Amino acid sequence: INAGKSQHNEDQACCEVVFVERRPSPRGRLPSREGSGELNGDRKGFYFHYWALFDGHAGSGAAVMASKRLHLHICEQLRDLVDVLQDPSPPPICLPHNVEPSRVSLAEYDGEVPNDAAPRFHLEKAVSHESLVIGAIENAFKNMDDQIERERVSQRLAGGCCALAAIYLMGKFYVANAGDSRAIIIRNGEIIPMSREFTPETERQRLQFLAFLKPELLGKEFTHLEFPRRIQPKELGKKMLYRDQNMNGWAYKKIEEDDLKFPLIYGEGKKARVMATIGVTRGLGDHDLKVFSSNIHIKPFLSCFPEVRVYDLTQYEHCPDDVLVLGTDGLWDVTNDKEVAGAVMEVLTSYEPNDPCRYTMVAQELVMRSRGVLKERGWRLANDKLGSGDDISVFVIPLGGPGNYT
Amino acid sequence: INAGKSQHNEDQACCEVVFVERRPSPRGRLPSREGSGELNGDRKGFYFHYWALFDGHAGSGAAVMASKRLHLHICEQLRDLVDVLQDPSPPPICLPHNVEPSRVSLAEYDGEVPNDAAPRFHLEKAVSHESLVIGAIENAFKNMDDQIERERVSQRLAGGCCALAAIYLMGKFYVANAGDSRAIIIRNGEIIPMSREFTPETERQRLQFLAFLKPELLGKEFTHLEFPRRIQPKELGKKMLYRDQNMNGWAYKKIEEDDLKFPLIYGEGKKARVMATIGVTRGLGDHDLKVFSSNIHIKPFLSCFPEVRVYDLTQYEHCPDDVLVLGTDGLWDVTNDKEVAGAVMEVLTSYEPNDPCRYTMVAQELVMRSRGVLKERGWRLANDKLGSGDDISVFVIPLGGPGNYT
Repeated sequence: INAGKSQHNEDQACCEVVFVERRPSPRGRLPSREGSGELNGDRKGFYFHYWALFDGHAGSGAAVMASKRLHLHICEQLRDLVDVLQDPSPPPICLPHNVEPSRVSLAEYDGEVPNDAAPRFHLEKAVSHESLVIGAIENAFKNMDDQIERERVSQRLAGGCCALAAIYLMGKFYVANAGDSRAIIIRNGEIIPMSREFTPETERQRLQFLAFLKPELLGKEFTHLEFPRRIQPKELGKKMLYRDQNMNGWAYKKIEEDDLKFPLIYGEGKKARVMATIGVTRGLGDHDLKVFSSNIHIKPFLSCFPEVRVYDLTQYEHCPDDVLVLGTDGLWDVTNDKEVAGAVMEVLTSYEPNDPCRYTMVAQELVMRSRGVLKERGWRLANDKLGSGDDISVFVIPLGGPGNYT
Repeated sequence: INAGKSQHNEDQACCEVVFVERRPSPRGRLPSREGSGELNGDRKGFYFHYWALFDGHAGSGAAVMASKRLHLHICEQLRDLVDVLQDPSPPPICLPHNVEPSRVSLAEYDGEVPNDAAPRFHLEKAVSHESLVIGAIENAFKNMDDQIERERVSQRLAGGCCALAAIYLMGKFYVANAGDSRAIIIRNGEIIPMSREFTPETERQRLQFLAFLKPELLGKEFTHLEFPRRIQPKELGKKMLYRDQNMNGWAYKKIEEDDLKFPLIYGEGKKARVMATIGVTRGLGDHDLKVFSSNIHIKPFLSCFPEVRVYDLTQYEHCPDDVLVLGTDGLWDVTNDKEVAGAVMEVLTSYEPNDPCRYTMVAQELVMRSRGVLKERGWRLANDKLGSGDDISVFVIPLGGPGNYT
C-alpha cells in the first residue's frame, strides 16, 4: 500500500519454511553413518522459518528478485553446516582436505586435531554455533548481492532494496538488517529493539573514512568533510563548522577552495543523502547507481552486509501477546515503537488468544494507521498529522502464540 | 604502584583547574564591548576542571609529556570558543573573515547571515554547544599526538600511552577515552559506564577495513583476515573458520597460500594484538613503533582520537556518595565495575559525608585491593586470585560532595 503515490508497490515480502538438506556425500567417499538421525531416508537436515521485507528504490527489480532468492542463499550457506550445528560440541576450527563441514563427525575430525586433549595451539579462539549462523546469513546477503549484479542486465533488474530478514532456527531468532527497515520485539509490553537503521547519518564515519582513504571515489566533485550547510564561493576564507571522519563533535575551520565541493554526506534525518543521491547506506542491488549526470559510482559506499541480532526464544517465557514486528520505513516514519506496541496490545486483546488471525489483524491495523485516511488536505493520521506516503509493509510474528516453531 | 614489576611507574596522572582566557583582540579591530562580563579587567573567559590518567607502554616518555600538556591543548582549543559557549543562542555556522569565534557577538554576526530571519539555506544542521566542546577535545588529542611526534627525538620521548580525561565544564562532565582505561559513574548505587575500551578486538573491523583498503600497510607479512588460531603450512587446502572485515559471524574458507600470513588481529582478551605487537588501538605517541625486526609501522592502525561521552550534572540530584571513577586497566583487569561500586560504598560510609579525604581513601583502597598482598605464591587478592601486576591508578571524583565545581 503506498497511498496512491505510484502504480507499483516497491516493497516486497517473503515468508517461508525452508528445509536445509545436508549436501549429498561425494560418491562413495563418506558413506552415511548409522544412527546419524537421518530424516526421509538420506534427507538429513533441519528446517528454518523465514520472514523478510524488501524496500525497493528506483524500481522494484532488485526487491522482487531478493524476495524470491535470499532465503535460498541462506539455505545454501547453512547446508555446509548441517552436522556442525546439530552437534553440541564446539564447531571444529579446521576441517580435513576436501571435506564439507556438513560431512564431518567429530569422531572423524578428532583424528586430525584432538578436540578433547590439551589444545595444540596456545591461542585458539572458541567460535560458537550462533556465530556460524550469523556468518552464514552475512555471506548469503553478499551472494544475493552478487547474483543481482550478475543477472541485472539479462533480468532487467532495476534499482536496489533494503533487506530485513528474521530467521528462526534451533530456538533462536536471527534478525538481519541492511537498510532503514526496523524490527522490534514486544514482550510483556516491553520494547526490545532488534535492529538499527543504516543511513548516511548513522554510517557517516565509515563513509568518510572510505572517502578519505580512497579520494578517487569522490570524482573531484565531493569532499569527505561534513559541513552543516552548503558553502558559497564568496565565503572562502571565513571560518565554518565542519566534521572530519574521526570526529563526533564539530569545530571551526577556515574555508579553502576544496571545501566548496559538495559534501559526501549532506542533509539531516530523512533528507540525508550520500553524494546527493541515496538515503540508505546498506542493501542489495544499486550496482549501476551513479551521481546524477556524472560517472561517479555510489555502490562502493554502500554495504550489502546486514547487522545480525540474536534473540534466544528459550531464555524467556512468552505469552500469546508477545510478538516480533518487522516493518519498512513507511511504517516507522509515522508510527514510533511505542505507538506500535500500543496498537499491538489494543488489537490483540480484542481477539481470543488462540485465534491465529489476530496477528494478521494487528499487521493490517498498523498499515492502515500509518497510511491514514484520505481527507481534503491529503492522507491524514488520527492525530491529523500527514500519513505515510511511502510503501508500508509489516509482519507481526507471534513468539508464544498458536504458531509453534518447534 | 606496580607491585614491584619495574622500577618506574608508566602510569601518569594530572589534575588541574584551568582558566580559558579569550584570545586578545587583534589590535584595535574589535574593541571589547561594554557589559560583556569580563573578569580580571580584560581577562574574559571561564574555568574547567580536569582529571586525566595516562597509561604508558614501552616507556613513560609519551605519558609524562601528555600529563603535562594535554590540558593545555584542550585550553587552546576552547579559547576560540569563549564567547560562543557563553552565548545561549545556537553557535553560528559560519564566521566572518579573519575573526576568531571568540570575538564574535551574535549582533555583529547577524549582519552577515541573519540568525532570527528565515534560514537562508534550506538544509542547515543545528550544532549544539556540547558538540563544539566535544570537537575541541577531539582536536586537542590530535594536537597532543602531533606535538609528541614533533618533539619525540629532541625530548627523547619513548613509547606511547592510553589517555583518559574527564573535563568538567559549564555543568557537564566530558569523559574522553583513547585506549583501555575505563570510567564509570556510581550514582545512588547504580553503575553508569562513561567510556568503552579500544582494543584489537573491539576495533577489529576498523583495522581490517583499513588493511583491506591499504594492503601495503601489511608489508606482505600479514593478512587482514582473522582466523581463530595460526594456520600451519601443511593445512593448505583444508577448510578453516575465518572472519572478514564485513563479518561479525564466522564461516569456513579453503586455506590458500595468502592465508598462511600472520593475522592482522590475533589473540583473545588481554592477549589480543595488532600485528603481534600492541594490545591497544587508541592513544598518544607510538610514532616509531614497528613490528619486531621489520620495517612495518604500527601507527597507521592506531587512532589518537578519543570517544567523548557527556554527563549532564544538572539533570540529576547527587548525594555525597555519588562519584566518577577513572582507572587504568591495572584496576579493571582484576576488579570489575560491581566490585568497584561495592568498595566505594563500603569506604564512603565509614567517613563523614563532608570529610573531603573520604574520596582519597576510596582511591587508595581501590588501588590496594587490586594490587593485593604479597604471599608465598606472589601478590594475591582477597579472593586468592592473582593481584594486578600492572601499574594501577585511580581517580575518585565526588559529584555531589564537598567539592563544588560551580
